Amino acid sequence: MDDAMQPEDTPALRALYDGFTAQHLNPLWTQIGDLMPRHPRPKAVAHLWKWADLYPLAKTSGDLVPVGRGGERRAIGLANPGLGGEAYVSPTLWCAIQYLGPKETAPEHRHSQNAFRFVVEGEGVWTVVNGDPVRMSRGDFLLTPGWNFHGHHNETDQPMAWIDGLDIPFSYMNDVGFFEFGSDRVTDYATPRYSRGERLWCHPGLRPLSGLQNTVSSPIGAYRWEYTDAALTQQLLLEEEGHPATVAQGHAAVRYINPTTGGDVMPTIRAEFHRLREGVETETRREVGSTVFQVFEGRGAVVMGGETHAVEKGDIFVIPSWIPWSLQAETQLDLFRFSDAPIIERLNFDRTLVEGA
Amino acid sequence: MDDAMQPEDTPALRALYDGFTAQHLNPLWTQIGDLMPRHPRPKAVAHLWKWADLYPLAKTSGDLVPVGRGGERRAIGLANPGLGGEAYVSPTLWCAIQYLGPKETAPEHRHSQNAFRFVVEGEGVWTVVNGDPVRMSRGDFLLTPGWNFHGHHNETDQPMAWIDGLDIPFSYMNDVGFFEFGSDRVTDYATPRYSRGERLWCHPGLRPLSGLQNTVSSPIGAYRWEYTDAALTQQLLLEEEGHPATVAQGHAAVRYINPTTGGDVMPTIRAEFHRLREGVETETRREVGSTVFQVFEGRGAVVMGGETHAVEKGDIFVIPSWIPWSLQAETQLDLFRFSDAPIIERLNFDRTLVEGA
Amino acid sequence: MDDAMQPEDTPALRALYDGFTAQHLNPLWTQIGDLMPRHPRPKAVAHLWKWADLYPLAKTSGDLVPVGRGGERRAIGLANPGLGGEAYVSPTLWCAIQYLGPKETAPEHRHSQNAFRFVVEGEGVWTVVNGDPVRMSRGDFLLTPGWNFHGHHNETDQPMAWIDGLDIPFSYMNDVGFFEFGSDRVTDYATPRYSRGERLWCHPGLRPLSGLQNTVSSPIGAYRWEYTDAALTQQLLLEEEGHPATVAQGHAAVRYINPTTGGDVMPTIRAEFHRLREGVETETRREVGSTVFQVFEGRGAVVMGGETHAVEKGDIFVIPSWIPWSLQAETQLDLFRFSDAPIIERLNFDRTLVEGA
Amino acid sequence: MDDAMQPEDTPALRALYDGFTAQHLNPLWTQIGDLMPRHPRPKAVAHLWKWADLYPLAKTSGDLVPVGRGGERRAIGLANPGLGGEAYVSPTLWCAIQYLGPKETAPEHRHSQNAFRFVVEGEGVWTVVNGDPVRMSRGDFLLTPGWNFHGHHNETDQPMAWIDGLDIPFSYMNDVGFFEFGSDRVTDYATPRYSRGERLWCHPGLRPLSGLQNTVSSPIGAYRWEYTDAALTQQLLLEEEGHPATVAQGHAAVRYINPTTGGDVMPTIRAEFHRLREGVETETRREVGSTVFQVFEGRGAVVMGGETHAVEKGDIFVIPSWIPWSLQAETQLDLFRFSDAPIIERLNFDRTLVEGA
Repeated sequence: MDDAMQPEDTPALRALYDGFTAQHLNPLWTQIGDLMPRHPRPKAVAHLWKWADLYPLAKTSGDLVPVGRGGERRAIGLANPGLGGEAYVSPTLWCAIQYLGPKETAPEHRHSQNAFRFVVEGEGVWTVVNGDPVRMSRGDFLLTPGWNFHGHHNETDQPMAWIDGLDIPFSYMNDVGFFEFGSDRVTDYATPRYSRGERLWCHPGLRPLSGLQNTVSSPIGAYRWEYTDAALTQQLLLEEEGHPATVAQGHAAVRYINPTTGGDVMPTIRAEFHRLREGVETETRREVGSTVFQVFEGRGAVVMGGETHAVEKGDIFVIPSWIPWSLQAETQLDLFRFSDAPIIERLNFDRTLVEGA
Repeated sequence: MDDAMQPEDTPALRALYDGFTAQHLNPLWTQIGDLMPRHPRPKAVAHLWKWADLYPLAKTSGDLVPVGRGGERRAIGLANPGLGGEAYVSPTLWCAIQYLGPKETAPEHRHSQNAFRFVVEGEGVWTVVNGDPVRMSRGDFLLTPGWNFHGHHNETDQPMAWIDGLDIPFSYMNDVGFFEFGSDRVTDYATPRYSRGERLWCHPGLRPLSGLQNTVSSPIGAYRWEYTDAALTQQLLLEEEGHPATVAQGHAAVRYINPTTGGDVMPTIRAEFHRLREGVETETRREVGSTVFQVFEGRGAVVMGGETHAVEKGDIFVIPSWIPWSLQAETQLDLFRFSDAPIIERLNFDRTLVEGA
Repeated sequence: MDDAMQPEDTPALRALYDGFTAQHLNPLWTQIGDLMPRHPRPKAVAHLWKWADLYPLAKTSGDLVPVGRGGERRAIGLANPGLGGEAYVSPTLWCAIQYLGPKETAPEHRHSQNAFRFVVEGEGVWTVVNGDPVRMSRGDFLLTPGWNFHGHHNETDQPMAWIDGLDIPFSYMNDVGFFEFGSDRVTDYATPRYSRGERLWCHPGLRPLSGLQNTVSSPIGAYRWEYTDAALTQQLLLEEEGHPATVAQGHAAVRYINPTTGGDVMPTIRAEFHRLREGVETETRREVGSTVFQVFEGRGAVVMGGETHAVEKGDIFVIPSWIPWSLQAETQLDLFRFSDAPIIERLNFDRTLVEGA
Repeated sequence: MDDAMQPEDTPALRALYDGFTAQHLNPLWTQIGDLMPRHPRPKAVAHLWKWADLYPLAKTSGDLVPVGRGGERRAIGLANPGLGGEAYVSPTLWCAIQYLGPKETAPEHRHSQNAFRFVVEGEGVWTVVNGDPVRMSRGDFLLTPGWNFHGHHNETDQPMAWIDGLDIPFSYMNDVGFFEFGSDRVTDYATPRYSRGERLWCHPGLRPLSGLQNTVSSPIGAYRWEYTDAALTQQLLLEEEGHPATVAQGHAAVRYINPTTGGDVMPTIRAEFHRLREGVETETRREVGSTVFQVFEGRGAVVMGGETHAVEKGDIFVIPSWIPWSLQAETQLDLFRFSDAPIIERLNFDRTLVEGA
């Protein structure tokens, strides 16, 4: 932008600007280029965390840091290098690796922040959500929507790690968060294979008559890997048989939904699972809002802002708003994805640009 | 009502009434009590059809009446005794038993009327909906929403019968129906175990990214018995374990839904499946709108308008608007139910009265 | 349709058909052509009632028929000649001319049927809706949504006539109607210029904080002619100034809406007002659902099903489903319109065909 | 919170924390109390800006700072003292005083940020929104929803000031903003009394048939003071007559709405106008989300977080999330209000606490 409105530096102007400061004012004309850019210019940067780096640090935390009331969770937040060291993976999203040692319990609490967990490996932990014990196993996507009491316990002699996703930065920046402590133990140490929520809700195309009221977030506590894998497998088979099923050639994908509405699982977080056939490369896209991927299985690469990064199982990367990105599958590549798309869409800020389209 | 507005019969009045007739007019004051009753007074009556009567007549039709273009379907409509012989099970709904002999094909057509099928016994027929072959087996609930081409074919040496439900009376009375002939054969004689719609959509809590646009009717062609049965079984188990899951003590029930919205499967028809434990009796209810039940398994009774009817497998009964009804389970009693509730609710005419409540 | 499925007339077939009758059954194959036509073939016919015929009969009714409890209203229903003499202007809609003599009162009642009034001429009557007195004057559109108590009284020495529109046929055919008597007098004989509903709600773009809950029907009791006329006038002026504002060249139109949603005023009835510049002719359309027009001012013609009818002030005509129609304005032509479009649209049966388009 | 999870400071722990830093990680257990407080603990503070301070600084800016391309607007943002000097009145909202000298033009641009203006005094400026000139006068509330080109020009020999409200901080923090320059002049210097949007849309209870598609933001460019004042006057009159109309005794209030939906004017900003009778005091409330008031007329006080501030015409105050507040009217007190409530409600974070309730 030119400087049409930047007047000569005079004593009168300085007095004016001092007056602004004294009165808690700040003029638009000195900062509009930064405040209102031509397109989003995120402070957050595209970044990749390697599972090979994350897991050992989590394991050491398990040795050195006890889990318990006060700190609440042995969760290590991914801090976007552009965001000043805060544990924000993006301006809206929190992503952490959480680690629970053998026989440990993370105490119960609840908060208005919406939370999920995704398990890239391991098993043996149950998360207890409003008293309903939910098994956690590799490939499962697990929900703890806002204001539900929840705690975790590890029933085995092995530690377990997983990732947590929440809207903590959004809640913090916009001052919307409430928090309440619950039991120091989990309220039910039973270890059923399927939670009550699943038993009531995980029947395709069916809804219990005892649950006809729509809910803000999904009543399903666990989206099991067996279903996700089957859905992706069927999409690729249908594609092979010549029928439309995938989102692009060789690219199967599902969105996790709230069965009472068909919409996103929680008001602020979208979650999906993507599978690329070996050799597939996605088109380059820019989207408003930030998104995080974790590689679940396979090898490949992500191109973010023009830079290519090799990725493999467990690796996590964040793509801030409007940064161009694409994926490349060296082997079949399975990826879990979450984003702040519900925030962006509900407020009508969504835009997508497909390069070359 | 009293006769305050019924004036003396004079030559002048007769002349006035003749004038009304000549000008295609009809005064309210002579008919308001009938037209606008204190509560719904349906012409349709509560009625029970016995499967033991229906099936032999369908079988004989199979011997005497060829299926083919023009008549389109060997379907025999249940004609509510209160509706003058028309094949209307209620003012809004059509219910028929359809019969397809060994190796027969019912030709393809499409219509704006919404249709479903429910299979109380048998197997061996595939219904082909917009080119997608859908297996029909006992306990399955199958959809043909408005304006989808569909035909049926029987691959076996055995005949098969099932019930059809449509909104034909509603469409006919309100002049909303379109109809178009398709192929005289079905367009795909393949006999896959699962239809493409199921393979894409029947993964609980998941939605394909290739299907993010909401649809007026469900994209699921077949709701399989295995899922329905499992859902009901889990509800009763959860109840036994002390958790809320059933709609009333001993009464499990699911609604078939459109997974893109969580709402009813089609804009005019609701479908549900109910299971009563042995010995359970439901409360007596009155509801605006008409509903049809078919006994799927077990023995019991229905009380409609104060009259008790014993029911068993295959029996079909209709409950018109505002007629009080309750169910009694002699053995465990499984019932399929469909109704015009979406019409009633979308137009805000719904009311329910639970007697004694 | 051909007769593929019409088998030879044999004793066995007759026995089968007798069996159908005995068991309250009716086969599809003998009647599908009528029940499921290629496009809507309404029994209702396009018809025009002349105000010059209607008004004298209403006036004579005023002399001969007292208004009061039991008959409730001195309302004379327009009986579509295709519907067997019933007072149905179409399968879904009721339209009547109502007449109230000097100093008369029509007693209060309420019903689930949705009602409105439109005033083509006259003034001096107040309709009292849930205790809120609403003045009725030429050009006003007045609402009595379902289950609101209402009565009318004439404060003057002159009689007054207007038209009523309701969903009586729909409610009757589908058994959804409830009715309750209220006071034999109106509960408030005050004659304010503006009703309380108007004073609270008729401020453009504003909503009272005391009324943030959305309502099924509009909270506005009277849509005044001054606003309707101004809106149409502005549309034609904007068109003259070269800006998009009209629905077609020379054709201004507004829809009456529920301000809490922006949608139709009541769940079953749409109401609009149309103004055609002198000389304008509309395109020929077919629409699913039935609609009624009353000429408010001016002269012109309506073409319905290929037949042209001259129309003038007060004339009422009905266009059944899928009958082609167009309007021609000899002078500037003002028309009030109502229809069952909300029923058709909420149930996803809407289709429109513009001829030549 | 206690320190259960704060382990002893050992070399191993320091090495772990250094590893976190090196890998762009940040543990939850050291910061959860700040990040996830028991209830919102906004950094933003309650603050009052006096019009008597603002206006002279704006006037001096008019003398010293030219308006034009680059700086775009002579707008001076209110910088919440808790937010480090940034021109954010709250974490989501921008509020500025804008000043346009005699005959000046502010050039056209558009941005995805949603904007409005409210005029506490003066007249003579037209804002041109997508080519539609909109007069600005005392008491008017004017909209510039996201991505509409707009510029302003002053036709008079007098300067004019008003307040701007936008979602700039929200857009900036969440990286959703786009910006585009338009004409250096406004595209239409006509000065009509009413804009085209008003002429099409400001007819109560009516919607043009040319505008049946719902829009994300309101199509009304100006909400005129005459309507706002009339609505408030009627509410207080109705209250005097004994009818429910106000939001609390002596407290009239309206919300500005999008007539296509009945909802808020823009996806991120709610706007209302409140009138308190002399002597009225509101109950003390806490609400999630931030809100800004400007006194339009009268004298009174606001109590925020327990501190009482006298307020008079033009004064602006902000109430951050969950800070308790109430209003007191010394004279009749008229206040314009805007907030981020649509953000909070669409994401299901809304909560309200009325003290003593």
